[in-house]
Amino acid sequence: MTQSTIRLGIIGHGAQGGNYSSFLSQGRVSNTTLAAICDVDEGKRAKADEYGVPFFSEYLELLDSGVVDAVVTTVPHYLHPEVTMAALDRGVHVLVEKPAGVYTKQVRQLLDHAASKPELTTAIMFNQRTNPLYQDLRELVQSGELGKLRHTNWIITTWWRPQGYYDQSEWRATWGGEGGGVLVNQAPHQLDLWQWICGVPKSVFAKLAFGFRRDIAVEDEVTAVVDFGEGATGTFITCTHDLPGTDRLEILLDGGKIVVDKSNTVTVTRLSAPEQELSKSMDMSDVMRIFSGGADTSTLMSTTSKTYDSSWGDQHPTVIENFSANILDGTPLIAPVEDGMHGVRLANAIHLSGWTGAEVSIENFDEDRYLAELNRRIADEGKFDVRTEN
Amino acid sequence: MTQSTIRLGIIGHGAQGGNYSSFLSQGRVSNTTLAAICDVDEGKRAKADEYGVPFFSEYLELLDSGVVDAVVTTVPHYLHPEVTMAALDRGVHVLVEKPAGVYTKQVRQLLDHAASKPELTTAIMFNQRTNPLYQDLRELVQSGELGKLRHTNWIITTWWRPQGYYDQSEWRATWGGEGGGVLVNQAPHQLDLWQWICGVPKSVFAKLAFGFRRDIAVEDEVTAVVDFGEGATGTFITCTHDLPGTDRLEILLDGGKIVVDKSNTVTVTRLSAPEQELSKSMDMSDVMRIFSGGADTSTLMSTTSKTYDSSWGDQHPTVIENFSANILDGTPLIAPVEDGMHGVRLANAIHLSGWTGAEVSIENFDEDRYLAELNRRIADEGKFDVRTEN
Repeated sequence: MTQSTIRLGIIGHGAQGGNYSSFLSQGRVSNTTLAAICDVDEGKRAKADEYGVPFFSEYLELLDSGVVDAVVTTVPHYLHPEVTMAALDRGVHVLVEKPAGVYTKQVRQLLDHAASKPELTTAIMFNQRTNPLYQDLRELVQSGELGKLRHTNWIITTWWRPQGYYDQSEWRATWGGEGGGVLVNQAPHQLDLWQWICGVPKSVFAKLAFGFRRDIAVEDEVTAVVDFGEGATGTFITCTHDLPGTDRLEILLDGGKIVVDKSNTVTVTRLSAPEQELSKSMDMSDVMRIFSGGADTSTLMSTTSKTYDSSWGDQHPTVIENFSANILDGTPLIAPVEDGMHGVRLANAIHLSGWTGAEVSIENFDEDRYLAELNRRIADEGKFDVRTEN
Repeated sequence: MTQSTIRLGIIGHGAQGGNYSSFLSQGRVSNTTLAAICDVDEGKRAKADEYGVPFFSEYLELLDSGVVDAVVTTVPHYLHPEVTMAALDRGVHVLVEKPAGVYTKQVRQLLDHAASKPELTTAIMFNQRTNPLYQDLRELVQSGELGKLRHTNWIITTWWRPQGYYDQSEWRATWGGEGGGVLVNQAPHQLDLWQWICGVPKSVFAKLAFGFRRDIAVEDEVTAVVDFGEGATGTFITCTHDLPGTDRLEILLDGGKIVVDKSNTVTVTRLSAPEQELSKSMDMSDVMRIFSGGADTSTLMSTTSKTYDSSWGDQHPTVIENFSANILDGTPLIAPVEDGMHGVRLANAIHLSGWTGAEVSIENFDEDRYLAELNRRIADEGKFDVRTEN
């Protein structure tokens, strides 16, 4: 490809789409230009006029117009697969907004479709992967320097949302319109990062509370325990009703421990040898000395701490730039669309465990049962049509 | 009772019993004197001679001797009920070492027996309840000032034990000799404190790893999620293989949040009104202002922090003094023996969930099934006799 910039269309000009058109129109993504805006709300035409780009109220017209090389799907989660597949069918590259879909069956269809179009780029907006903190953390864990995982615990409750947020529109926080609560809307970032860093768990058991402290149908409180196999486990706590909020990730490995506070400070304790080796050479008198402060623990472990600057404002432009660079010159993607499956499957499995009260396999996830249970809730709700397979 | 001091006998002069006889012989408990030592190991007679108190190798002889008013049961956990009941039958008051027993059926027998002897004092050594930090914390939560519980998470992995600790004796970390691992030996303190502060959960699901990073038969790694009812949940993580160790307790309530770090620093965030009321009066623009730092959050919440001095060395003497005071003048007990049931039942339920892979009711705990499953493990191990009911 000899062109040097990608013409990007925005499908869905709500809060997130509006954010993208704003920074694109300011020229903040060097290899990408804002080329068109699409929204079912005609009222958004004024914004397109302001930016001097064509407006479409029908996304297929935008895709057929020839004015874009690529689109980003800032539409309600359920529509991500449908819009993505239509774009790919027309030779248009797609940056899929997270989550890739609401349930694994529709995400699988999206992925199969994308795989059948290898000449097109399909990526997903996991903007938090561009955070240097999480990139360093993944590198540290995946390098194996600290050995195998023992357990990991993430309390991520900094997703406070007031009742007014849920009352903004009819589809929000419904089974039929949004497909879930904090697991589908807010926590997908951490559901991705956690698995990106620590690996994909094999099963999950979860306690969910639906409309716990908000007047909504879906979950605003989640406590999940996952099994990574070979005795390694994890817990994931999230909610939208914790105003002070906690963001604390701990990872215990054979060779040390990592604690990330507030997504900005990483404290790494490195043991001088794998913990089991240290264990074999010590007895209870050593324990008494260590815990009474009478031993020099610097021979056993050392701790370093690093605080990262916030990278928040640059994350979305960086993902769009990377997406366009992949189209232009094959630069490896930060988040290929296939990676979108993990977060949706874990969120689905957490839902299914919460609904059934039983542990749920992630390795052999029963996606038919999930869709049937989801549809039962959509039908009971009575506001939206039940979902067919896609 | 007109006497002013209690003559205390120590049954079982191992590490803990030796600690008690040491500080009692130093006169550190004003209302209690060391009156006798009992151990199956004749080698401990020298210590009794040193302290100038009678030595018994048979605990029934000590109980019948008339030289003690009360005893403390620093014997292997399985024996606590048997020794306690024999003492009560002889009119001797008992301070039961924690845990009250290994399984709920034997603890129930102990409690029934104690209840039939209301004229005698039966208490349990929950020494950490004397820690002013946990007393203040319980008062704060139980007072209702911060409203109802939403969730609570305790990572308590400061119980590091090397392989040499487990290799000290044959009974340690076996099903037949000890009845479990970290849940039975180290974590009972926190299993008690957690329920004392936050309430008794209704059910539990747990992932346990047995001999995970130690060469033992029992659990050295525990991840449990509990359900307190009405959507409130908790997680409890403990292990004996985390050398740096974490001790972090978080409690989220309707009116604020409490975080306890390292069992010495308590940070309390109080909301200016119950969170649901604040939620109802705010919308997404408030959220953006708060999280971008553009709002004055002091009108929404205030945070205080307090660091406590270590009370470690005084805890056990304080419990013994309280126990003796209860005998002498009816001073209310810090930990009546009935309170010993909660921790044993929760530990049993965590075991049973880990063994069966299913959520286990605590409210209607199936103690017959627990004992059957425990006995199956004792039989497979082949080192000790299976347990009858007591």
